[in-house]
Amino acid sequence: MGLSYSDSGVDYTPLDAFKRACQAAAATTVGALKSHGLTEPADTRGDSAYLLEAADHYLAHVEEGLGTKNLVADAMAVATGQCYYRAIGIDTVATIVNDLITCGALPISVAMHAAVGDSAWFSDRNRAGELAAGFADGCKLAGAVWGGGETPALPGIVTPEGIVLAGSAVGQIMPKSRRVRPNLQDGDQIVFIASSGIQTNGLSLARLIAGRQPKGYLTPVGQGTLGELLLAPSVIYVDLVRDLLAAGIVPAYLAHITGHGWRKVMRAPQALVYRIHTPGEIPPLFAALMTLGPVSVEEAYATFNMGAGFALYLRPADVKAALATAAKLGHRAWLAGEVVDEGGRQAVEIPGLGITFAAESLKLR
Amino acid sequence: MGLSYSDSGVDYTPLDAFKRACQAAAATTVGALKSHGLTEPADTRGDSAYLLEAADHYLAHVEEGLGTKNLVADAMAVATGQCYYRAIGIDTVATIVNDLITCGALPISVAMHAAVGDSAWFSDRNRAGELAAGFADGCKLAGAVWGGGETPALPGIVTPEGIVLAGSAVGQIMPKSRRVRPNLQDGDQIVFIASSGIQTNGLSLARLIAGRQPKGYLTPVGQGTLGELLLAPSVIYVDLVRDLLAAGIVPAYLAHITGHGWRKVMRAPQALVYRIHTPGEIPPLFAALMTLGPVSVEEAYATFNMGAGFALYLRPADVKAALATAAKLGHRAWLAGEVVDEGGRQAVEIPGLGITFAAESLKLR
Repeated sequence: MGLSYSDSGVDYTPLDAFKRACQAAAATTVGALKSHGLTEPADTRGDSAYLLEAADHYLAHVEEGLGTKNLVADAMAVATGQCYYRAIGIDTVATIVNDLITCGALPISVAMHAAVGDSAWFSDRNRAGELAAGFADGCKLAGAVWGGGETPALPGIVTPEGIVLAGSAVGQIMPKSRRVRPNLQDGDQIVFIASSGIQTNGLSLARLIAGRQPKGYLTPVGQGTLGELLLAPSVIYVDLVRDLLAAGIVPAYLAHITGHGWRKVMRAPQALVYRIHTPGEIPPLFAALMTLGPVSVEEAYATFNMGAGFALYLRPADVKAALATAAKLGHRAWLAGEVVDEGGRQAVEIPGLGITFAAESLKLR
Repeated sequence: MGLSYSDSGVDYTPLDAFKRACQAAAATTVGALKSHGLTEPADTRGDSAYLLEAADHYLAHVEEGLGTKNLVADAMAVATGQCYYRAIGIDTVATIVNDLITCGALPISVAMHAAVGDSAWFSDRNRAGELAAGFADGCKLAGAVWGGGETPALPGIVTPEGIVLAGSAVGQIMPKSRRVRPNLQDGDQIVFIASSGIQTNGLSLARLIAGRQPKGYLTPVGQGTLGELLLAPSVIYVDLVRDLLAAGIVPAYLAHITGHGWRKVMRAPQALVYRIHTPGEIPPLFAALMTLGPVSVEEAYATFNMGAGFALYLRPADVKAALATAAKLGHRAWLAGEVVDEGGRQAVEIPGLGITFAAESLKLR
C-alpha cells in the first residue's frame, strides 16, 4: 500500500468546507467597498489573489503561509549543525508572491508573520538573522518592499520549538489591461515553469517519508541528501510575469502549482480538459520520495509539483515569445500540454502516465 | 510577590531584538518601490502600519495576530458548553484594523489567517461557522471587505487543539492631508477611548491568573465570570478615526493601546512626557486580575489597557469636537492627560497612581 497525503495527517475535507463557509460570509461584506470608491470584480472570489478595482488600477491582496517546511530545516539543523533558515525566509516570500501574481498583479509590499511558541526561538541570533535575511532576499527577488510584520509568542498554541511562518502582500495591476483573468479556450497551450524542488507544498507527506528511513533526512539522493533537496529555496516567478506583461503577453490564465499538486492545473473556473503531453522528467527528489514512500505515481502528481512550479496558459501565438522570455530570465520552461474543450468535461489528463484527475478531485470554491 | 508579564512565559526581549533585525533587513528592500512609482515616507518604519506614498494617496499595509485569546474561548467552551468564537472572529479583525488606523488609513480589505494543528479543528461546524461569522462582523464594523485568507494545517507546529488567528489589512489615506504622523507638541491633549475589556493583549498573564483560581474562568467577577469578561469582543475604532478625519480633525498622533499596556502611550518617536491626570476608574475585570494575581498596579498598567483601548493626541482646540464625535458614535471617551515638553525627557506618568514608565521600558524601534 502506498502513502497518500491524508496519511500525513492533513485531511483537506474540513479545511475546504471552512474555506467555502468563509467565502460565503466574506461575500456579505462587499457593501463596504462603495465608501472607498472601489468595486469587487465579479470573478475574483476563489482566485489565489483578491482583487479590488479602482479607476485606473486594480489592488491585489494575498495572505499565505509557508506550511510545515521549517520542520525540515529544524530536523536538518539537528542532523548537520547547519542553519537553513535563509532558504526558509525566501520560501515564505515565494509562497505569498507566487499566489499574488496569478492575477497579473505585481507585489509592492510583503509583510512577515512569524508566530512562535516560545520567544526564546529568537534567542538563537544566527537563526533569527538568517530568517530575516532570507525574507529580505525574497522581497528583492519579488521586486517588493518588506513592509512590516508581526512576531507574536503564542505558548499553548504553537509548539515550544515551533514557528508559524506566513505573511501577506499588497500588489497592483496597472494598467488594468494587464489583469489575468480566466479566459481559456480550446487550443490554448500550457507552458510549465520549473520548480526548484518541493517548494512549499507536500511537506507533510515528505516529512512522514523521511521519518521512516533509517538515515532520515540524510538518506542519499543523487549527489546530496533528501533533506538538502527538500530545502532548496523556492523559485519566485514574479520577474517572469512582470516581463510577460510588459511585453504585451497577457496569459489566458496563470496557476501556482501548490497544494493538490497537478490537480491545480484545472484551477480556473472553466469546464475544460487540460491534457499534459509533456510532463517532463520526474526530478530526482520526487523519484526518491515515490520509491521511499512508496507513493504511487498518481498520488505523487496529486500532491507534489513534480518539477513544475508555475503554469502559463497561452494563446498558441504567444508561446514562442513566452518561452524566450523565460529563458532570458533563467527560468527553465517547456511546452507541456494544451487546453481542450470537450463540451463541459473538466479534468487534468497525463496520458503518458495513465493519469486522469477528475473535476471532483479539486474543490476550491 | 506579584506576577509580571514575563511570568506568563512571554519575554519580549528576544522578540524585540528580532523585530529590530527585521527592520534593518527590511530597510535594504526599499529600492524596489521605484519601479512601482511609489516611495516610502521617511518616518513610517516602526509605526503600527506600513505606508507607501503614491501621487494622490497613501497605501497602508498591516499584518497582525490575535495572540492567545482563543485559548480562553476554548477553556470556556469546556467549562460552559458555549461557543465564543463569534467574539474571537471580531477580535481578530479588531487587532488588525485598530493598528492600521493609527496612521489615518481606513481599512479596505482584511484577510484572515487561521492555522490549525489538525484540520479536524474545522470539523466542529458550529465553531467554524461562528468564527467565519465573527470575522465578517468585524469587517463590517471596520467598513472593510473580507478579502480572502489562508487556512493551513500545520501538525507539529500548531498544537493538536490549537488555532493561530491572524491576518492582514490593506488600507488607504485619501486625500493625503489626512495622514496622521507624529506631530506632537507641548500642550497637546490626550483623549482615551474606552476598551471593552482586555481586548487582545495581556491574555497570557490573564490565563495564568485564571488557571490559579479554584473556579478558574468561572470565578465570579461582578455580575459575570472572569471568562465572560475576558471574552468581550474588542472595540473597533475605525468609525471614530474615519469621522474625525472627515470632520477635518487630523490628530497629532494616534496610539492603539496593546502589548506593553500604557507604555504604548509614549509610542511616538518624540521625546516627550505624557502626563495622565485622569486615568479613569479601573474596570472590574482589571481590578479582579490585580487582586487575584496578585498583579501590582504598576505591572497592570504596563501590561493591560486598563480600560483605555485607543488614544487620540489632539491640539487643545480639537478636544471638544473629538469628544462629541466619539459620543455620537457611542464610544466612551475622556480627556485623560496632556503632552509636556521637558527638554528631551520621555516618559509616561500617572501621578495619581504614583507610576512613571521611563523611555527604556518601551523599545519598539
